[in-house]
Amino acid sequence: MTTTGQTGQTEQSAEFKQPVTVIGLGNLGLALADAFLAQGHPTTVWNRTPAKADGLVARGAVPAATPAEAVAASELVIVAVLDQATAHDILLPTAAALTGRTLVNLTSSTPQPARELAAWAAEQGAAYVVGAVYAVPQTIGTPEAFVLYSGDQNAFETHRDQLDLLGASGFVGTDAGVAPVYDMAVLSGMYGMFAGFFQAMALGRSERIRAADVTDRLVPWLKAAADALPGFAREIDSGDYATVTSSLGMNAVGLRNILSATESQGLGTALLSPLQALFDDQVAQGHGAASLSRAVESLQPRS
Amino acid sequence: MTTTGQTGQTEQSAEFKQPVTVIGLGNLGLALADAFLAQGHPTTVWNRTPAKADGLVARGAVPAATPAEAVAASELVIVAVLDQATAHDILLPTAAALTGRTLVNLTSSTPQPARELAAWAAEQGAAYVVGAVYAVPQTIGTPEAFVLYSGDQNAFETHRDQLDLLGASGFVGTDAGVAPVYDMAVLSGMYGMFAGFFQAMALGRSERIRAADVTDRLVPWLKAAADALPGFAREIDSGDYATVTSSLGMNAVGLRNILSATESQGLGTALLSPLQALFDDQVAQGHGAASLSRAVESLQPRS
Repeated sequence: MTTTGQTGQTEQSAEFKQPVTVIGLGNLGLALADAFLAQGHPTTVWNRTPAKADGLVARGAVPAATPAEAVAASELVIVAVLDQATAHDILLPTAAALTGRTLVNLTSSTPQPARELAAWAAEQGAAYVVGAVYAVPQTIGTPEAFVLYSGDQNAFETHRDQLDLLGASGFVGTDAGVAPVYDMAVLSGMYGMFAGFFQAMALGRSERIRAADVTDRLVPWLKAAADALPGFAREIDSGDYATVTSSLGMNAVGLRNILSATESQGLGTALLSPLQALFDDQVAQGHGAASLSRAVESLQPRS
Repeated sequence: MTTTGQTGQTEQSAEFKQPVTVIGLGNLGLALADAFLAQGHPTTVWNRTPAKADGLVARGAVPAATPAEAVAASELVIVAVLDQATAHDILLPTAAALTGRTLVNLTSSTPQPARELAAWAAEQGAAYVVGAVYAVPQTIGTPEAFVLYSGDQNAFETHRDQLDLLGASGFVGTDAGVAPVYDMAVLSGMYGMFAGFFQAMALGRSERIRAADVTDRLVPWLKAAADALPGFAREIDSGDYATVTSSLGMNAVGLRNILSATESQGLGTALLSPLQALFDDQVAQGHGAASLSRAVESLQPRS
């Protein structure tokens, strides 16, 4: 969380607030434009369905007739649409207006399309920043929301005061594709946790135990286990898996027992069998005595 | 966490501490016997390899020559050995000595063996309690350790003061198989989180991002997501999936995009594809607009 407030704007009068353009008025874009209006920024908006802007216009936003008009209205242009293909289609006709502007693309992305759009924006003479947003619409503009940015670091720093209105900002790298990689990684971690949760709930159900009762025991354990992850990360970064609090061999046996008992409960094991395969692969390679975290070595990219 | 302390022991003098027997001196049994000795309980111990008891004996523990002698020494007998088959083999010859005793089995178990041993203990006239321990040896005897018990509730309550020396005690059901079900469920949840963590680390590596950097962003997000689980549990218990903060359809698309981009990074998707299959199954059944938590309905036990 940053608290830079008005620093960096000392040449501006207290009355002056930088104009901002928001393209795309889905949940994120709406929340975003609202936050800018609330802070007194002259705010230009564009959405494919213009009626979505009505509430914002009533609160002082300026509706643009075309994306190019929206881009021309502000030096800072924020895009939050359905996907990268949509972003590309909307921005393509604005190419001439983009020169010298900063484009902050908050549209959910993966690394390759982010890099392609960054290259295209560079050709138009625009500074390009990618943001991965971690928030639900209700938390936009609160410290609970956080956004990871990558791309043009100068443009990020220049507009950081405005970007901080969305939530806590973090800059993760000058390669535009890096924020989407963090995004994929964090969401993959979350989906793994959800997979484990569903399996836990199914096990409870197989004995008519309430989901709430199992969850009451599960949540503190998950939080404690999450606190072990930075230690695993240190082992992975150093490649030194010899200091062991929990060994691959022990976990291979432990997980196998759980999966076997899960089958005895009449339940499938598909959600966790792939993790067992990682453990078994490591043990088969002779790493049974190494730390559990070494399992990541069985997930090497194809060369 | 209980704070009953000396309540329930008001008839005993301050000098009197109940005798306790610990069978099995692995990490858990050793830590356990140490905690009892430290509190002044007369402590009898037995281990297949007697030398493991030497340190405890030096601190005042009494070594038993046989399991039957160990059982005969105390009304409260705690067993912590490798697995249920080992527990059964050790206890079988002690049958005659078990009558009227309380057997607390902390050996890692699954529901069916726990129930079989409970039935056998009942035939010998012993009260039987199963405990699932969540602790590493260093945390035994601290509030960080917690143990879930099921089985004979009277026996649990009678010996709760002694059992609380291991950590925070919770009683989850009179069926001996219930604590092992909780155990399997909680560990399955943890392994799901670990699977997601490994996938996140592999994604970071594919772009040469340090594991520590990704983990710094991942851990707070996992903890925030863990706080959403009790809400999912309420939906699962009620069967009402209509109040939606995150829909199955949206997550099916979101996870598919992540897995597709993961493949573009040259990485496999085996750890998370089974979750995608749950989401797809629910969407195919027409539940795309329902809450994400409805995915558990695709994990029904085979009838």
